[in-house]
Amino acid sequence: MSALGLAAMGSYTVGGRAVTVEGRAKRTVALSAGLGLDYDPNGQFWIEQAYVQYFVPSTQRVEWPLVLIHGGGLTGSAWETTPDGRPGWLHDFLVAGFAVHVVDNVERGRAGFCALEGEWDGMPIVRSEQESWALYRIGDASDYVRRIPYAGQRFPYTCLGELTRRTVPRWPATIDAQRRALLALIERLGPCIVLGHSQGGGFAIELAATRPDLVRAAVALEPHGNFSSIGSVALHNRPLLLVSGDYFAQSALWRDLDAKAQGALLAWGRAGGIPHTLRLNNQGLPGHSHMMMMDEGSERIAALIVEWLSDVTAGQPRG
Amino acid sequence: MSALGLAAMGSYTVGGRAVTVEGRAKRTVALSAGLGLDYDPNGQFWIEQAYVQYFVPSTQRVEWPLVLIHGGGLTGSAWETTPDGRPGWLHDFLVAGFAVHVVDNVERGRAGFCALEGEWDGMPIVRSEQESWALYRIGDASDYVRRIPYAGQRFPYTCLGELTRRTVPRWPATIDAQRRALLALIERLGPCIVLGHSQGGGFAIELAATRPDLVRAAVALEPHGNFSSIGSVALHNRPLLLVSGDYFAQSALWRDLDAKAQGALLAWGRAGGIPHTLRLNNQGLPGHSHMMMMDEGSERIAALIVEWLSDVTAGQPRG
Repeated sequence: MSALGLAAMGSYTVGGRAVTVEGRAKRTVALSAGLGLDYDPNGQFWIEQAYVQYFVPSTQRVEWPLVLIHGGGLTGSAWETTPDGRPGWLHDFLVAGFAVHVVDNVERGRAGFCALEGEWDGMPIVRSEQESWALYRIGDASDYVRRIPYAGQRFPYTCLGELTRRTVPRWPATIDAQRRALLALIERLGPCIVLGHSQGGGFAIELAATRPDLVRAAVALEPHGNFSSIGSVALHNRPLLLVSGDYFAQSALWRDLDAKAQGALLAWGRAGGIPHTLRLNNQGLPGHSHMMMMDEGSERIAALIVEWLSDVTAGQPRG
Repeated sequence: MSALGLAAMGSYTVGGRAVTVEGRAKRTVALSAGLGLDYDPNGQFWIEQAYVQYFVPSTQRVEWPLVLIHGGGLTGSAWETTPDGRPGWLHDFLVAGFAVHVVDNVERGRAGFCALEGEWDGMPIVRSEQESWALYRIGDASDYVRRIPYAGQRFPYTCLGELTRRTVPRWPATIDAQRRALLALIERLGPCIVLGHSQGGGFAIELAATRPDLVRAAVALEPHGNFSSIGSVALHNRPLLLVSGDYFAQSALWRDLDAKAQGALLAWGRAGGIPHTLRLNNQGLPGHSHMMMMDEGSERIAALIVEWLSDVTAGQPRG
């Protein structure tokens, strides 16, 4: 990787709520072979916060911090080393001069999940490697066993296991809590740029659509989510970039999600925003999966986004 | 914080095992407002891996990588920004010239937990703020409500909420899996230094006691765990440093754990290792809690450990 100078690095939590538990029975638990504790499940807890790790490069070329929002079933580690061991977008954006704030959203990764009874509905689900293979458009579901990907595939599919090991459980019931935590994050940061992938791309669009006072530019990588908030606030020429990869012909699900995202982009324009589209196939970059930030050539996609962000933020008033 | 040059940064996973789930019923779940999926709980999963984030400073003054192992109920974020917003030990050790590998052990943080039925016994537990207050020797349990700490307390107790928000659930049943993941980690790294806190300190001692070929020096901050492996392998002058804080007089539990740790240190010497003790009270540094890496003055403790590591590693053959 490129050597990197940092002016600052650290982490913080944001959002969430305090919960008081009362009236439950104590019990003894062994926390290690050396420590058996009388565990009291009662008391004060905090749930539904997001965790954010940030890095500020010594040479900051872009004024506003860049918030990276991972997709569902993943954590902020999605932006780090790729499954085949190359530097990820966290590195690429730092080298490009962005201060980067990497989110672990509610219940994912270092944000911690809620283990208190009765707070969250249902049980967590976790994505199998087979589902990743098909949902991320690496190859046809029927070809998972033989690991034969779509022709020209740029996802490092021989290292799929590393992505499986970074896939974490999720609760379908926490979408509103995730939305609230992200809103608390941008309110803390002030003017910023948001970039989200998949579920995180849907959140990026929502944040940008509802808080154009804070979100100066938004990038959504194959987003899905609730786009109904677009139009609730005038968007004052705020730019939104929709990025999409290859193999939509092979997936009815993704054609449907892409059509919805294109609809969101039209609504964005009607609401006074400036819609942009980056179809990688049309840029001479075919073969990209849904996990484009991990694909071979991921650094070229990052470079296109950096170029776009430089263009659309250059003309905006500071502060 | 001090500006910092990095030669490399990234992350990887290590250890764990593949699990195949079969014969479970499919169901529909809403992964976002835009995406309802036929969720198939069957397939290939990976559980019990550890996640490791690493940083290599441009000026590396110590040959062996330093592995930081968090305590129970916490993640690698314990080494980052302190609850009151100061740079943590990750920063301090990087500035001192160590390549630092920060673990999220099995089921904690970005390592992800196992959501597959029948794999892990029991339910996760989570530590309340009241338990943290007392167990970390911030103050007497009866003084939590009024937030009156022990006299001279250096833990930033007015920011205890930030620690609560970084406290994550844990399964008492995963101790063996955590041990295996850490062993896989040092086998991947080769010669290294391990530094662990609390439950992580117990693991650090175990690793050092069983693999002195790999662990060139070990630091244990108020450890607890299974010390019975000390003596199973000759320790060939390998150094072990035991670090402890203040307020043991106020806690029968910690006096007992400290006595066990002192016993481990005696066994360490009998097995041919070189035992060292750093009682912060005896160094003119009173008032430290169990969370010494987060306390006011944490950088002074890091500096003492850096000095000790420089001494004990200087005389060892390289490679």
